[in-house]
Amino acid sequence: MRDSYREQLDSVVADLVEMSQLICAAVRNATAALLNADLQLSEQVISNDGRIDDMHADIEMRCFDLLARQAPVAGELRTVVAALRMVTEMGRMGDLAAHVAKVARMRYPDRAVPTSLESNFARMAEVAEEMVEQAGKTLRTRNVAVARELAAIDEEMDDLRRTQFRILLGNDWPYGVEAAVDVALLGRYYERIADHAVSMGRRLIYVVTGEIGGIDTWTQA
Amino acid sequence: MRDSYREQLDSVVADLVEMSQLICAAVRNATAALLNADLQLSEQVISNDGRIDDMHADIEMRCFDLLARQAPVAGELRTVVAALRMVTEMGRMGDLAAHVAKVARMRYPDRAVPTSLESNFARMAEVAEEMVEQAGKTLRTRNVAVARELAAIDEEMDDLRRTQFRILLGNDWPYGVEAAVDVALLGRYYERIADHAVSMGRRLIYVVTGEIGGIDTWTQA
Repeated sequence: MRDSYREQLDSVVADLVEMSQLICAAVRNATAALLNADLQLSEQVISNDGRIDDMHADIEMRCFDLLARQAPVAGELRTVVAALRMVTEMGRMGDLAAHVAKVARMRYPDRAVPTSLESNFARMAEVAEEMVEQAGKTLRTRNVAVARELAAIDEEMDDLRRTQFRILLGNDWPYGVEAAVDVALLGRYYERIADHAVSMGRRLIYVVTGEIGGIDTWTQA
Repeated sequence: MRDSYREQLDSVVADLVEMSQLICAAVRNATAALLNADLQLSEQVISNDGRIDDMHADIEMRCFDLLARQAPVAGELRTVVAALRMVTEMGRMGDLAAHVAKVARMRYPDRAVPTSLESNFARMAEVAEEMVEQAGKTLRTRNVAVARELAAIDEEMDDLRRTQFRILLGNDWPYGVEAAVDVALLGRYYERIADHAVSMGRRLIYVVTGEIGGIDTWTQA
C-alpha cells in the first residue's frame, strides 16, 4: 500500500516535469509565431493549450486523491500541496503562452511586434523559456540552489520590461497606438510567465526545506 | 479534539470572508485614487496590501496545519484545499488593486485615465467590487446558485473591456501612447480581478457539491 502510494506521488512529480516541458514548447512556439507572423504555428499553440489543461485537471485530481486516501504528512504532504499549486501555475503559464499566440493570430498577416522591439521580445522569450526549463528541472532534481537562482534570472526579465517601456514611451514611437497596446500586453504576458517560474522555484524550496520564505513569496503567484 | 478542529476550520473560513472585505475596500480605494488622482489614497492602498499579504500567509499556514494534524476527508478536505486556493487568488487580487494604485501614483498629479474612459473604468471597478463582494458572501452562505451567477456578471466585465479596446484603437484616440498603455494595463488588472472572483465562485461550488466543472474552470485561476 505504501509502495503504491510512493509510486503515485512519484508519478505526479514526473507528470509535473512533463507539463513543464509542454509549457517550454508553448512559450517557444508562441514566440516564433509572434515574431514570424506564423498563423499555423499560433493555431497550434492555441489548440495545444487544451492538452495542458487536460494534464492540469488530471494531476489536480490525483493530488486530491492522495490527500483524501493517504493523509500524507511532513515532506510528502508538502509535496502534494506544492504540486497542487505548481499545477495551477503551469496551467496559467500555458494560458499566457496561448494569449501571446492569440495576439500573433489577431494581427496576421502583419507582425504584432515592431522591428525595433523584435530583439527585446526574442530575449524576453529566451529568458522565460530558460526559467520554465529550470523550474521544471528543479522539480526532478530537488536542487534548492538552482531553484533560488530563478529570482536572479527574473531580474533580467524586469530589465527587459523596463527597456520596453523606455522605447514605448520615448518621444519617437512611430508605430501608433495599436502596436503600443500589443507590446504593453505582450510584455506583461512574458513577465507573468517568469513570475510563475520564480514562484514554482519557491514552492520547490518549500517542499525540500519546509521554509516558506517571505510574505511576498506567495503573492508573486 | 474534533470540536477544536471544527472551530479552526470555521475560523479559516471567517478569515477568508474578512480578507474578501479587505480586497473590496482595496479595489474601491484604488479606483477612487485612480479617477481622482488622489496620491494619499493610492499610497494607502499600496501600504494596506501588506496587511492582505500577512493574512494570506497566516491563513495558508493554518490550512497546512489542518491538513497535517487532522487529515480531513470529504467535504472538510475540499474546504481546506479550496481555502488554500482562494487565499492565493485573494492575495493576487490584492496585488492587482495595488497595481492600479501604483499607476495612479506614477501619473500624479495627472490622471492616468482620459476623460472619455472615466465612466468605463468607474463601471469596471463597480463590477469588480460587486463580484469580489459576492464571492466573499458565498463563502459564508455556501450558496451555489449565487456562486454560479459570478460567471454571468463577468460577461459585463468582458463587454466593458471590449468597449475599452474599441475606444483605444479607434482612429481618433487623441491622448497619445502613454495613456493608451496605461489604459490597456489598467483594464487588464480589473479584468483579472474579476476572473479571480469567478474562479473563487467555482471553488465554492466544488466545496459544496464536489463538482469540479469544466477544464477551463481551473485555468481561469
